[in-house]
Amino acid sequence: MRVLAVQKKTLGTPAENLERVRRMLEDAAAPDVIVLPEIFTCPYDNSCFPVFAQEEGGEVCRELSKIAGEHHAWLVGGSVPEREGDRIYNTSYVYDREGCLITKHRKIHLFDIDVPGGQYFKESDVLSPGEQVTVFDTEFGKMGVCICFDIRFPELFLEMRKMGVTMVFVPAAFNMTTGPAHWEVLFRSRAMDQQIYMLGCSPARDETASYVAYGHSILTDPWGRVVRELDEKEGLLSMEVDLSYAKTVRQQIPLGSPADRM
Amino acid sequence: MRVLAVQKKTLGTPAENLERVRRMLEDAAAPDVIVLPEIFTCPYDNSCFPVFAQEEGGEVCRELSKIAGEHHAWLVGGSVPEREGDRIYNTSYVYDREGCLITKHRKIHLFDIDVPGGQYFKESDVLSPGEQVTVFDTEFGKMGVCICFDIRFPELFLEMRKMGVTMVFVPAAFNMTTGPAHWEVLFRSRAMDQQIYMLGCSPARDETASYVAYGHSILTDPWGRVVRELDEKEGLLSMEVDLSYAKTVRQQIPLGSPADRM
Repeated sequence: MRVLAVQKKTLGTPAENLERVRRMLEDAAAPDVIVLPEIFTCPYDNSCFPVFAQEEGGEVCRELSKIAGEHHAWLVGGSVPEREGDRIYNTSYVYDREGCLITKHRKIHLFDIDVPGGQYFKESDVLSPGEQVTVFDTEFGKMGVCICFDIRFPELFLEMRKMGVTMVFVPAAFNMTTGPAHWEVLFRSRAMDQQIYMLGCSPARDETASYVAYGHSILTDPWGRVVRELDEKEGLLSMEVDLSYAKTVRQQIPLGSPADRM
Repeated sequence: MRVLAVQKKTLGTPAENLERVRRMLEDAAAPDVIVLPEIFTCPYDNSCFPVFAQEEGGEVCRELSKIAGEHHAWLVGGSVPEREGDRIYNTSYVYDREGCLITKHRKIHLFDIDVPGGQYFKESDVLSPGEQVTVFDTEFGKMGVCICFDIRFPELFLEMRKMGVTMVFVPAAFNMTTGPAHWEVLFRSRAMDQQIYMLGCSPARDETASYVAYGHSILTDPWGRVVRELDEKEGLLSMEVDLSYAKTVRQQIPLGSPADRM
């Protein structure tokens, strides 16, 4: 299974961002799963979420569907602000190889942080939290999706593991405070604890943005190793992944999950 | 609060090991909590557990009680093989400053591992598992205890955090396969996820032993940093710890634990 994370800068309009995704995908070796960054169609800024939020099935969704179909690949469409009634969610839409929307994940754990001299952000001022754990079936097995701050909650990964995942995709935009401190150790530890692969896709760093993303899109394996990590610039993380290695590790260090006996 | 981990080699008899602990403690700056390594009174070997196992209240317990009282310090007495009827447990006895036994932790998750070309061990051939999460109250707040392989289970730390701990003590003996791969990331991630201090106390490395311990006794903080880490040789890890820093981190990155609202 070839996975591909598209680490791109976040530009002006949703259309410009989608066009940039298309361009970057032109260079990609035929991926089975494409993952885009968190909030990749508009600036990561509370003031932008209401402006750019669309309902499910809107223009952004239609474009994501086309991209999946064109590449005949599973697509974890990063995340975008989703409007439903009075509420806005931070939502990751997932498409199959034919471009059919098969599930969506609404960020469960909103990102509130206040580090003096470091990062301040309060998503919960504008966004509403999702309530559901999100997994989906592929020909390679069951996969999970969560978004950024969700990764801080080990109970979510325990739950996904019980549901049988061997890999979790994480559109995420850590910052210059939490990125250097926590990004790598979170991806390594979730992978090691649940004996799964983890793929994080970040926006590329843009020092001129109001929220500066860390970058460093990352793939970690069921032994807890970093398989590949990008730097802060735009680029593709493209890797062949052998999911059967999860089974090998689970035999070497049996952690006794019910999922192992399936 | 000054914590002290005693990283010592495991010698021949229980009496020799306890004497070595006493000697090493002569050099220590008045600790509030002393932590000893996993299985520190006999070789870490399945054939030794039945030979050296003692019932609660036996000679080893009486000596541990004396050591706590002599130093007027809380003592997490590493771990020793404990016999109860037909069963043997890997048990950590905890004493207060007066040398009273206040609780004990029986290793819940037994260490079974089989890495080709790496480490093989199967505790479950000889030992029985404990069933209880172990926390205890001190004048500094609530503390947790677990043993070695227990650290691989994030659900245990979620539970301890719900019970209100700000620090967890971990007598542990990782090996030359899992130590370099997982020791540091486990201590960093448990500390970061639950926003607590973690103190791991390992035996010093003995290349002549049947099971070669990694060493590297370690203190990590609620931000997920390594505060201090020993090398593989005998030595003391002695550090002043400011537990209020856990509260600071919980305010900076609110993870919404019920324990935060207490």
